[in-house]
Amino acid sequence: MSLTLYELCGAEDRRFSPFCWRTRMALAHKGLDPDEIIPVGFTEKEKIAFSGQELVPVIIDNGKTVADSWDIACYLEDAYPECPTLFGCDAALGEALFINNWATRVLIVELFPMIVKDIFDRVREEDREYFRKTREKWMKGKLEEVQATRGTRIEPFRKHLDPLRYTLEKEPFLCGKAPAYADYIVFGVFQWARHASPFILLSNNDPVREWRERMLDLFDGYARNFDGYPC
Amino acid sequence: MSLTLYELCGAEDRRFSPFCWRTRMALAHKGLDPDEIIPVGFTEKEKIAFSGQELVPVIIDNGKTVADSWDIACYLEDAYPECPTLFGCDAALGEALFINNWATRVLIVELFPMIVKDIFDRVREEDREYFRKTREKWMKGKLEEVQATRGTRIEPFRKHLDPLRYTLEKEPFLCGKAPAYADYIVFGVFQWARHASPFILLSNNDPVREWRERMLDLFDGYARNFDGYPC
Repeated sequence: MSLTLYELCGAEDRRFSPFCWRTRMALAHKGLDPDEIIPVGFTEKEKIAFSGQELVPVIIDNGKTVADSWDIACYLEDAYPECPTLFGCDAALGEALFINNWATRVLIVELFPMIVKDIFDRVREEDREYFRKTREKWMKGKLEEVQATRGTRIEPFRKHLDPLRYTLEKEPFLCGKAPAYADYIVFGVFQWARHASPFILLSNNDPVREWRERMLDLFDGYARNFDGYPC
Repeated sequence: MSLTLYELCGAEDRRFSPFCWRTRMALAHKGLDPDEIIPVGFTEKEKIAFSGQELVPVIIDNGKTVADSWDIACYLEDAYPECPTLFGCDAALGEALFINNWATRVLIVELFPMIVKDIFDRVREEDREYFRKTREKWMKGKLEEVQATRGTRIEPFRKHLDPLRYTLEKEPFLCGKAPAYADYIVFGVFQWARHASPFILLSNNDPVREWRERMLDLFDGYARNFDGYPC
């Protein structure tokens, strides 16, 4: 029995991938502790070539390789039915997929330009040329210039959090009284920022900030025990 | 044993409230058939004054009054546990609340300006002055001028549907293999448009359109049996 996690790694051993955080929290929720966590730099694609694709996270669980954070969550739910459930029921799984798409296609898209240069500064030296080239192509501009617009981007970003904010005014977690995978999906986005950028994303009295604190406290402060910016 | 639903009504008996459609579909899902459905015009607030607030839907179920579509769904779930579940589990309920907030605070907000004059044209004669006055205040402009901008609003609206669209590329319903309350929440938004406006919202090959067709087919074509525009 062995479980290995391949995870994105920056300079100074920073682990800032929002997708890898989804998987880390899912594993913690299931009570599964990887035997080995293998850091993967942006350009070390050969390390995960065995998975047949180029993106982390990847897990190898008792010889079974699974890539993609969503597929990993579904795999863990099926493979470990005796551990705490990540979804709860079929309807919750469908809704979590919606929230997965919202987090990836709205939150990450809106947040990335605000912290892209900060991420660059925390990428391993040998990965920086690759990071700059690929991300400047996506962003259609220089990293420095894109990030310099964040003063005008922060309020629209906060507005995009409204569906989450109004939910957290009624319930302590996105999944209600207790956290589940949809919470980890969205939390991963904030862990990305927390590990890569000192930029403050949330105002002090924001229910989303209070929720993030509760998420940092889970599993004996599992996520909080990693160095991060207060953001 | 009796169940009464108070629901918004326009000219020619049109029932276009997105919130009342959430309740109508929730009742159909539970297999509950109201003994009476009482139409309420925009200015007939005295009809629901007994509920202590001014908005439809309101139900009276065996003497118990419940207002607000979300509270009604939660009430029905608790009061009729032997009928098909609207949520599925606690986590799904939490996630459905998020989707409720997304539909109300993103979809409805983005859609309203595109159909507001069409709705006005289908409001009862005696409600039009009230509707124009209140909605022009919200919209900060004349109904005609606001709606005239819809050519530039439709693509951003379609983009806002991305989290739904990518979910429906993987699953037939927002709640997975079978529809549940989160599906009805979002479907209500489209019923609002379908009953009030001939404006085409979705392109022909959009998975969201195919899902809407499936929703119209539910419960022996319950929603389809109401006259509506193809939109």
